[in-house]
Amino acid sequence: MHILILGGDGYLGWPTAMYFSSRGYKVTVVDNYFRRHVCEPLNISMLYPVPNLVQRAEIWHDNTGHEIKVVVGDLADPELMRSLFNGRASYQWAKDREFTGVPDTVIHYAEQPSAPYSLLDYKAANFTVINNLSVTNNLLFAVRDLARDTHIVKLGTMGEYGTPNIDIEEGWLEIEHKGRKDRFLYPRQAGSLYHTTKVMDTDLMWFGVRMWDLRVTDLMQGPVYGIETEESKIDGRLKTIFNYDEVFGTIVNRFITQAVIGYPLTVYGKGGQTRGYLNIKDTLQCVHAAEQHPARPGELKIFNQIMEIFSVTKLAEMTHAVGNKLGFNVEIKQIDNPRKEQEEHYYNPSYQGLIDIGVKPHYLTPEVLAGMFKVVVQYKDNIRKDTIFRGVKW
Amino acid sequence: MHILILGGDGYLGWPTAMYFSSRGYKVTVVDNYFRRHVCEPLNISMLYPVPNLVQRAEIWHDNTGHEIKVVVGDLADPELMRSLFNGRASYQWAKDREFTGVPDTVIHYAEQPSAPYSLLDYKAANFTVINNLSVTNNLLFAVRDLARDTHIVKLGTMGEYGTPNIDIEEGWLEIEHKGRKDRFLYPRQAGSLYHTTKVMDTDLMWFGVRMWDLRVTDLMQGPVYGIETEESKIDGRLKTIFNYDEVFGTIVNRFITQAVIGYPLTVYGKGGQTRGYLNIKDTLQCVHAAEQHPARPGELKIFNQIMEIFSVTKLAEMTHAVGNKLGFNVEIKQIDNPRKEQEEHYYNPSYQGLIDIGVKPHYLTPEVLAGMFKVVVQYKDNIRKDTIFRGVKW
Repeated sequence: MHILILGGDGYLGWPTAMYFSSRGYKVTVVDNYFRRHVCEPLNISMLYPVPNLVQRAEIWHDNTGHEIKVVVGDLADPELMRSLFNGRASYQWAKDREFTGVPDTVIHYAEQPSAPYSLLDYKAANFTVINNLSVTNNLLFAVRDLARDTHIVKLGTMGEYGTPNIDIEEGWLEIEHKGRKDRFLYPRQAGSLYHTTKVMDTDLMWFGVRMWDLRVTDLMQGPVYGIETEESKIDGRLKTIFNYDEVFGTIVNRFITQAVIGYPLTVYGKGGQTRGYLNIKDTLQCVHAAEQHPARPGELKIFNQIMEIFSVTKLAEMTHAVGNKLGFNVEIKQIDNPRKEQEEHYYNPSYQGLIDIGVKPHYLTPEVLAGMFKVVVQYKDNIRKDTIFRGVKW
Repeated sequence: MHILILGGDGYLGWPTAMYFSSRGYKVTVVDNYFRRHVCEPLNISMLYPVPNLVQRAEIWHDNTGHEIKVVVGDLADPELMRSLFNGRASYQWAKDREFTGVPDTVIHYAEQPSAPYSLLDYKAANFTVINNLSVTNNLLFAVRDLARDTHIVKLGTMGEYGTPNIDIEEGWLEIEHKGRKDRFLYPRQAGSLYHTTKVMDTDLMWFGVRMWDLRVTDLMQGPVYGIETEESKIDGRLKTIFNYDEVFGTIVNRFITQAVIGYPLTVYGKGGQTRGYLNIKDTLQCVHAAEQHPARPGELKIFNQIMEIFSVTKLAEMTHAVGNKLGFNVEIKQIDNPRKEQEEHYYNPSYQGLIDIGVKPHYLTPEVLAGMFKVVVQYKDNIRKDTIFRGVKW
């Protein structure tokens, strides 16, 4: 089986590549290093330096004998996207430079993934919309034209649903209206421009599925936390990129970093904002389960990819408890909310589908939090306080 | 009052500009001549030659004494969009070159408006997505940053709703689910990539309204027919652009042109495809009514902009009847449907909102059809048979 991973250098992309590679899949990764390059102009830094994709592929090969082919380029360019399906791909690194062939599955992570970045200013907003929609649209047409049977696994976000006052189902809703019925995509209204591009991605994918019988699984993922995966433990240099700043750091990762340097945990407003979360190890399991249970031609399968639900206040309290037990001096500080969002709201999503196809959740236990503290504290001296909160306004 | 018309050279844009100008509004139009330029590579032609925007503005001024300021440029460039709000606009034509100031209302027609074009190939698809979303997003951020009180009148399409099995409401739907209720955008699933970009536009606009209290009216318009408006009759050179080809011709306009040259009316498949239609004169009325009843800050007002409902077969029969009475030899021919769409379906949309705020519908009577025949036949020798049907496939 051949897996193509779009955005293969990212927080989730690289761990996914190693996960499939270690299980005997042929893996190709593609990335344009957007995240690495944008850190400079934003004056933010990752927690520790990470080798580039070519180096990572070499380290992986040296340790395991497995090949992860590397293409460096911008998937917003339709010709680059098509080269991955028509045999014209140019590998920056590969043991065997022959084209692996049309992928059986594409995993699409290749988007600008930050809500604050998407609202930094009109230029970043414009980039986010064009980049994210171009990549998804290019993928849609490449698969339509060149690989009709390839299964697309697209990373969506639970943020597409927003915080409605009714229960959130897994992607679909049967609606009865004036005595008639139909089934629709669950209504979506997201809380950031980035999340809105994911709503638009789903619109696009659903169009492709209806028109050309494409096979698409859309994974509505919650915020991910964690650093290590089974494969990253093989060699310290294989660890995923880790941002703890306001722009690219996800909340649990950020809170632990703040706790380590004694920066009060930043709770925006009342802290009742409630979301579903998952461990990075479960992202890998979920993507694998989706790959193992592909959508049929003409089917858009949607799963809600979260394992448990917390409010921001609850996450702060858990980090506080574990951190103080470990000897850190952790404070919690409510600050004015720079975002426009409901700080207290109804939230009741379904998330049974992935469990039903075999995913075994990891939960955010004190042990898991303590394990993250243990990694982060090794890089304590690298942490830049000035990047933790700058107050990007919605 | 100052009206800014994005896409002011188009089939609807120019008639809208004259309509407001003749009523004493200050009018600025912006266009990049996309429609004119793309006819060449597509090897299609308009029914008659049309002066460019600068010439049109001069002819209009010579006839009426009114000024329509002209900016030529690409609104997918955020700097050009912002120049229309921050005073840096560069007019290609104006009697008074001073900046008119922030517009009270923006009417946004500036999109690639053809469903077949959007599905011509992956390049046209890519262009459609990037162009349409960039312009809408640039407008959103320009208004957010520079003109928070400006009312945006955005042209959407009835095609956003598709053909659901439940009644179509005007933009919104209250949904009851498991004993709880919320109000959502009416679920949308469009039948072409172009129409899908309009769904995505609505996603974007709704985000802007919720986040920044923008004022937006989204007009879900059906296919428009017609040539003349009150203002175009002032001088023959003021007529709107008129396409009758498969790519840019709307169905009634196309059928009349086919009838005039004895090209059998092309009914795709069973012909039960049912949509709402309106006369170009009513587009002007509707946009005016929307401008006169602006959305409040934080309100997304949605109207269904159609005046009556027909199936394709019914439109063919009406054209057939009027054409034959006028002495043309009109045939109707069912051909294999190049599109993927339901050819028989439930269709029951509401469209009372615009009538309630004063729009007086024109209907597609035999007299109206005969009037269109009368104009088209003058240009009979210009009609190119080879552009009427090429079978762009979905």
